Amino acid sequence: MAKNISVDVAVIGAGTAGLVAVSEIIKVTQNFVLIQDGPMGTTCARVGCMPSKALIQTAADFHRRGVLEKKGILGTEGLRLDGAAVMRHVRNLRDHFTNGMVAKTTRYGERLIQGHARFAGIGRLEVAGRCIEAKTIIIANGSRPALRPEWAALGGRVLTSDTLFEIETLPKSLAVLGMGVIGVEIGQAMAHLGVRVVGSARSGRIAGLSDPAVTKAAAEALEHDLELWSGHAADLAAEGGRLVVSAGPNRREVEAALVSSGRVPNIDNLGLEQLGIPLDERGMPHYDPATLQVEGLPLFIAGDTNGREPILHEAWDDGRVAGYNAVRTAAPARFKRRAGLHITFSEPNIVTAGTRFKDLEPGTFVTGRCDFDDGRALIHDQNQGLLHLYADVETGRLLGVEMCAPDGEHLGHLLAWAIQRDMSVFDTLKMPFYHPVIEEGLRDALKQAAARVRKKPHFPEMAFCENE
Amino acid sequence: MAKNISVDVAVIGAGTAGLVAVSEIIKVTQNFVLIQDGPMGTTCARVGCMPSKALIQTAADFHRRGVLEKKGILGTEGLRLDGAAVMRHVRNLRDHFTNGMVAKTTRYGERLIQGHARFAGIGRLEVAGRCIEAKTIIIANGSRPALRPEWAALGGRVLTSDTLFEIETLPKSLAVLGMGVIGVEIGQAMAHLGVRVVGSARSGRIAGLSDPAVTKAAAEALEHDLELWSGHAADLAAEGGRLVVSAGPNRREVEAALVSSGRVPNIDNLGLEQLGIPLDERGMPHYDPATLQVEGLPLFIAGDTNGREPILHEAWDDGRVAGYNAVRTAAPARFKRRAGLHITFSEPNIVTAGTRFKDLEPGTFVTGRCDFDDGRALIHDQNQGLLHLYADVETGRLLGVEMCAPDGEHLGHLLAWAIQRDMSVFDTLKMPFYHPVIEEGLRDALKQAAARVRKKPHFPEMAFCENE
Repeated sequence: MAKNISVDVAVIGAGTAGLVAVSEIIKVTQNFVLIQDGPMGTTCARVGCMPSKALIQTAADFHRRGVLEKKGILGTEGLRLDGAAVMRHVRNLRDHFTNGMVAKTTRYGERLIQGHARFAGIGRLEVAGRCIEAKTIIIANGSRPALRPEWAALGGRVLTSDTLFEIETLPKSLAVLGMGVIGVEIGQAMAHLGVRVVGSARSGRIAGLSDPAVTKAAAEALEHDLELWSGHAADLAAEGGRLVVSAGPNRREVEAALVSSGRVPNIDNLGLEQLGIPLDERGMPHYDPATLQVEGLPLFIAGDTNGREPILHEAWDDGRVAGYNAVRTAAPARFKRRAGLHITFSEPNIVTAGTRFKDLEPGTFVTGRCDFDDGRALIHDQNQGLLHLYADVETGRLLGVEMCAPDGEHLGHLLAWAIQRDMSVFDTLKMPFYHPVIEEGLRDALKQAAARVRKKPHFPEMAFCENE
Repeated sequence: MAKNISVDVAVIGAGTAGLVAVSEIIKVTQNFVLIQDGPMGTTCARVGCMPSKALIQTAADFHRRGVLEKKGILGTEGLRLDGAAVMRHVRNLRDHFTNGMVAKTTRYGERLIQGHARFAGIGRLEVAGRCIEAKTIIIANGSRPALRPEWAALGGRVLTSDTLFEIETLPKSLAVLGMGVIGVEIGQAMAHLGVRVVGSARSGRIAGLSDPAVTKAAAEALEHDLELWSGHAADLAAEGGRLVVSAGPNRREVEAALVSSGRVPNIDNLGLEQLGIPLDERGMPHYDPATLQVEGLPLFIAGDTNGREPILHEAWDDGRVAGYNAVRTAAPARFKRRAGLHITFSEPNIVTAGTRFKDLEPGTFVTGRCDFDDGRALIHDQNQGLLHLYADVETGRLLGVEMCAPDGEHLGHLLAWAIQRDMSVFDTLKMPFYHPVIEEGLRDALKQAAARVRKKPHFPEMAFCENE
């Protein structure tokens, strides 16, 4: 390809959002470039969703030994881990998923350009000494773990999700700084694998929950596995060659630390200041979340870079929106987003769907609860957790849910779909619930909420033929 | 209570349907009796859903050892079963659930009458020498496993679900006659527990599936665990003191046999012939499925006894319908039933929802498929199965699904709800799917079906703001 080229669309970043954007763009034009800086294969496949799920699965399988003896399964005391093999298996699966994504990237041949992109002006990029003129540009170059330089200086024993899956074997002890989704998932998985884990949640919030009772249930569940420090900023230091984590009055020597206290959008190294447009304190231009367009410019921001919802299915949709609109800049379409759904793959799962508790107006909603203490959850030895669902006090319309629940990932889908379809607690109670299933716990919560709604139908349990 | 009594409602059978019926009746009248013959505690809790799930959970936990070594979990060769402890654990859980149901039964005090009920006429019952006059009667006395007398004569080694959970320890080998829900669940669980199992499916149908491709996938999954004989009627015989199962050219000596070839409604021992009303060949009077009323009489038939859908949540609804109408006989309400949902808790789960394949008109529907060979299913080592979903060829409206799928119980709920809400494949594709989840396999099938529907929206992947 020529040194200086002119294209319809340039996409910065061959991650999830960028690849999906390209799949939309090529429905209209083949004259595009996809620019990738660093390793190919998406955050999700390389260092995110996939290797974490592989580690969690092994951890859950090993942890399960604790409930087997009472069932008549003997010999569990002989089960042991080969830490190096555990990490090799995680990397093998990771490589399987990453290779799939790399193949989806390299198929674009010379339209794929490797190097770091910088803006030289509106519609102009410089990449590895080449100049690219583009009618439209999509910024989709992801995010990176936040890591304070003084912690980075402590060396390889201070990990982030970028380096975690490269460790040769399991550490004996681990500090987890930040109990968001990544901290909770990895912290608990490491604990299940026999690593002594201490987790620090500065704000006391856990995995994005905002309901105090559900947060408490999640904390209690985590405390079966690890030590949880809450309410103090954590710090790392080397003391006589040893790594020490501290937070308020707490202090612990650890073999390694995982810093999981947020991610930084890769927006700060693109030369956006060359565009002469207003940038916020993070260096982010203002964009319309319904079109992903930067106001007045042929420029879109998609995926983790835009800082909106750094989760895969939202990045995927961002790619669709930006790709669709990048080839229709005359009249970009406004897209309606899906109902919110956030899942932390801990045990029990931590899930929110729809509106979070903290965003509800007190007095406008009723709550239904279930604590999963019996039935199928008991049979599966997963009888712990708490689900709170919120419904409109007048009509019973489902508003949202926060939960720490067995099979919460599945309950979350059911509820997110019901919320997006504007269903009420009464509508959902007319749906089938098999027996014995975890969904019956959800039904208990729906019934409880239904009983508290002001306007109730005559017989909420079933539908009459004449009424629908 | 007096020898001869007169009540508003008499309920025959304190199982699920009977107990739920009483819970509706007491909202209107306290003048009722509940008549129970034999052990209390419901089919579900005593010999059905609950002990089978307990056995399946232990079996799944033991079977799981086969995938652990590659993950770095060593020492699995030392795992072994204490068969007696396995069965004790199952019975302990069973007793926990049964005791809960017994407590719900005995709380009715002297309104609970123990003994066998027989009709002496319309509105008249005889129970243990007492005569009961009832304005309305609900028959809800369940069903029993079908067992040919010549097989019963072979003694305790010929089991049904009524006797299975009482065995002291696991047999070395087991023949399973009938691969419906019970045969598949118990047969596979026993195989996972190390029992050598042969299963005979006379018709070739498995767990209620009707789609040939899904049936084949289910058979292949089962054949990892047990030997499956298909297409021949099976027989049992004692040969020189040994138990032998045969079917067509197949023949095998086994230590025990489970007869799971259907259930017989307990309708044949009530003296219904005293009522002078027409009975069908099973001895069943004609009843209206929307009201559960026997035509023209103050008589209702609910739960397994009516032979409609012998599964718990349907029995529960039957109890509601019959109980609601038993105290409103002047104008019984017609109830709309929930979308069909049938789950077999095998590995993978076997599930049908909505309309079955065999009941669809060829040419009127499109099919979408997923075989769960990658993604989360691969991480969980559950990457086998097949899902076929059916949608209206013109509009894309979801009609039904048959599947043999990991986490099929949860996919089944999601789809049954979507079907009951008249959603199309395009509607469902606008819902959130998290990553990485088994639900993404469902999305693949939805996309495939969507591509085959005649009338497609412009951009099926997402919703535009102006369109909804």
